[in-house]
Amino acid sequence: MDSWAISKATIGADLHLEPMGRGLRNGLMNALREAVRTGRLAPGTRLPSSRTLAADLGVARNTVADAYAELVAEGWLTARQGSGTTVARRAEPRPSPSATPRTPPMRRRPTYSLVPGSPDLSTFPRAEWLKAARRALTAAPNEAFGYADLQGRIELRTALADYLARARGVRASPERIVICSGFVHGLMLLAKVLRQLRGARAVAVESYGLDFHRDVLTEAGLRTPCLPFDALGSRTGGLADARGVGAVLLTAAHQFPMGMPLHPDRRTAVVDWARGTGGLILEDDYDGEFRYDRHPVGALQGLDPDRVVYLGTSSKSLAPGLRLAWMVLPESLVADVTRVKGHADWSSGTPDQLTLAEFIGSGAYDRHVRAMRLRYRRRRDQLVAVLAERAPDIRISGIAAGMHAVLELPEGSERSVIQAANWQGLALEGLERFRHPQAPPGRDALVIGYGVPPDSAWTGTLDALCRVLP
Amino acid sequence: MDSWAISKATIGADLHLEPMGRGLRNGLMNALREAVRTGRLAPGTRLPSSRTLAADLGVARNTVADAYAELVAEGWLTARQGSGTTVARRAEPRPSPSATPRTPPMRRRPTYSLVPGSPDLSTFPRAEWLKAARRALTAAPNEAFGYADLQGRIELRTALADYLARARGVRASPERIVICSGFVHGLMLLAKVLRQLRGARAVAVESYGLDFHRDVLTEAGLRTPCLPFDALGSRTGGLADARGVGAVLLTAAHQFPMGMPLHPDRRTAVVDWARGTGGLILEDDYDGEFRYDRHPVGALQGLDPDRVVYLGTSSKSLAPGLRLAWMVLPESLVADVTRVKGHADWSSGTPDQLTLAEFIGSGAYDRHVRAMRLRYRRRRDQLVAVLAERAPDIRISGIAAGMHAVLELPEGSERSVIQAANWQGLALEGLERFRHPQAPPGRDALVIGYGVPPDSAWTGTLDALCRVLP
Repeated sequence: MDSWAISKATIGADLHLEPMGRGLRNGLMNALREAVRTGRLAPGTRLPSSRTLAADLGVARNTVADAYAELVAEGWLTARQGSGTTVARRAEPRPSPSATPRTPPMRRRPTYSLVPGSPDLSTFPRAEWLKAARRALTAAPNEAFGYADLQGRIELRTALADYLARARGVRASPERIVICSGFVHGLMLLAKVLRQLRGARAVAVESYGLDFHRDVLTEAGLRTPCLPFDALGSRTGGLADARGVGAVLLTAAHQFPMGMPLHPDRRTAVVDWARGTGGLILEDDYDGEFRYDRHPVGALQGLDPDRVVYLGTSSKSLAPGLRLAWMVLPESLVADVTRVKGHADWSSGTPDQLTLAEFIGSGAYDRHVRAMRLRYRRRRDQLVAVLAERAPDIRISGIAAGMHAVLELPEGSERSVIQAANWQGLALEGLERFRHPQAPPGRDALVIGYGVPPDSAWTGTLDALCRVLP
Repeated sequence: MDSWAISKATIGADLHLEPMGRGLRNGLMNALREAVRTGRLAPGTRLPSSRTLAADLGVARNTVADAYAELVAEGWLTARQGSGTTVARRAEPRPSPSATPRTPPMRRRPTYSLVPGSPDLSTFPRAEWLKAARRALTAAPNEAFGYADLQGRIELRTALADYLARARGVRASPERIVICSGFVHGLMLLAKVLRQLRGARAVAVESYGLDFHRDVLTEAGLRTPCLPFDALGSRTGGLADARGVGAVLLTAAHQFPMGMPLHPDRRTAVVDWARGTGGLILEDDYDGEFRYDRHPVGALQGLDPDRVVYLGTSSKSLAPGLRLAWMVLPESLVADVTRVKGHADWSSGTPDQLTLAEFIGSGAYDRHVRAMRLRYRRRRDQLVAVLAERAPDIRISGIAAGMHAVLELPEGSERSVIQAANWQGLALEGLERFRHPQAPPGRDALVIGYGVPPDSAWTGTLDALCRVLP
């Protein structure tokens, strides 16, 4: 049956009701809903009796009666004793107040990208991840599928406590770890705790960093003054003069985007400041695993677990799509952070959390990090070699670690190089984009995310880069 | 090597450094960190030269020199030209300002539970889920592992648009769906949009519902007046007199916890109100799939997709641990909701989202829902039969759908029945717990989540219940 015609005689209009769903009853219901929706059946219209319509359509009477009853229950139709079934009267819709266009205009997707901030997505270890998922889900207790612990699954917190102590020198215990769905989620929770529960007015940030990290702090009602900056990193000594600063946000192991580790004296100075004032250090350890010149610089948190909040993530080591990050908190902060996290409980799902726990516990995470370290190091070496040959005037820095580098440009050329690259289908970011609005203007430079391109695009990307460099 | 003794002669104290990590260098670093941490190596202490200590320990000089260099980089030690390596001087830690106890005191876990709100967790379809995960992760494009679309993965939104139209009569398209990590996350986003972007002052709620849903609204700065309530559900006609109400939150298909569907006249009335005033209806369709007397009552959203926000979840149909829920939004709200969602992007992880998309698309979700519907229906029938035999004076209602029922108690006995049950190791919730503080006192009753116990505990749970009923 492709279409039902309800005769003009029965309800005063030719209604070609297309049965859209499966089965007679569903088909009739859908057809009637559509007719009401489009106005073909006007409000107040009296429908034929179920007996009449059933005969008209050649279906069982109960089919029609059931469909009517359900549409009455849903509010499409009205049934009144003695007056039969009619189309429900409803007010006319009024136009929506803010009919803004839904999606921003499409931008052409660039052919190549060296925009920093993402690992090479083609390297996600799908097969190993699935193996870990199978082991994890098979072994999980039933309660794992229930409403989650606000701190995150204990299996994952236990695996992380061990891993972070071993690989990053973090003093962690599962009770002081809170899983969050990304660094920004963790920062937002901390910002709320600092502003609402601890009365902080400001969180100091570095002269170079990510604008949306500052936005999270600003939205929580915190000022974000910036620390002075030089070749040794952020000058944390300046904190002593700052007023109302309840915490400082630092990329201590590998400054983002400049690339140096925080100088030892300044590590010490910032811990001194925190101890002296009761302030907190928020350590953004986004890519601490990837260091090429020596072993990773241990986390600042190890120096004073009571004053440093360690924030780590799987976004660089595995994939941003996992939405799994973690905080190691001073014991005194755990209750505050879970209180702020509250009912919404935005941890990632149990299957992904359990799988990551198994992935770490089985050693697959260590193996993956080692493989990626070799891969990024090779990329970095190729970048350095190509630049030495084809753009020998460009100084490159920040290359001892991570998956990005800073390429110094001749004065005044940053914007034009980026534009030229974009024209040629290569997406680039300049250093200016990462500068704090209150920091003094920096040199012209590019921040190159050499970890981003898949292998297949790597040579083409390097070529495109060399073509636009002066 | 189990322990290193650094002689008193070299650094003025017997230091039994336990090498804790793997490898000589790591072991030495850990041992030195621990010695500094515990005060056995006091700040300012001058360490032996790397040559001396290497000889002392019988290891290569480079091993010690490397360890020193890293500990300097980490801020534990200080190296000065001409004065060798010393333990860094740092300020004394001051006591934490709020050393509140970390975890609430343990409560004894009850033997049985009929507390509503969770499905039977033992039924999570692990094998089918893993099969879907394998297919989904194998087929996913690389970009799926990158930073997520704020609305959620397109694969999941596409699968949901189809499913919701088919099973719940929802008018959905992938562009109008936003994935969130639970109903409460969605409600929080909507509350922010209503308060901050649309100037709403209040969201009307039902006389019976969940207190933490009201809390989310209150925290966003919205009042939560309650609708009058009777045997036909919430009296939505009352909305006409309410002032500053920008939206109404309804469990239209199956009132929680009372159990009736919203009367057809009242469905119509609330849509009229929304159209007349530009208000929104927030439809909490938490368990719309589980109806036993007839086909599921179609979603209110189908009546007017421009005025109704449909909120669905996998928490009842699959497992709360997935943290996957969805909103179908009027087109005019999509931009506002994603704007409020902002940088934090708390969607669940890509693997879980892709897996659910495959689980729905392959028909496994339909099969699971059908199997669970049969299971819960059987449970309900057993509950009704047991009560008829062993507690014939207890009236049971709200049993046409879902996985909970309301058991009416003699006046004044609700609290004592719950206490008696708790004493016997059976967790129960009374109706009072779900009453809006401004709603008139209701009858004494229990809200029984018969979907909660695993099969192995079901008979024991029923026995325990019958023992405490009057």
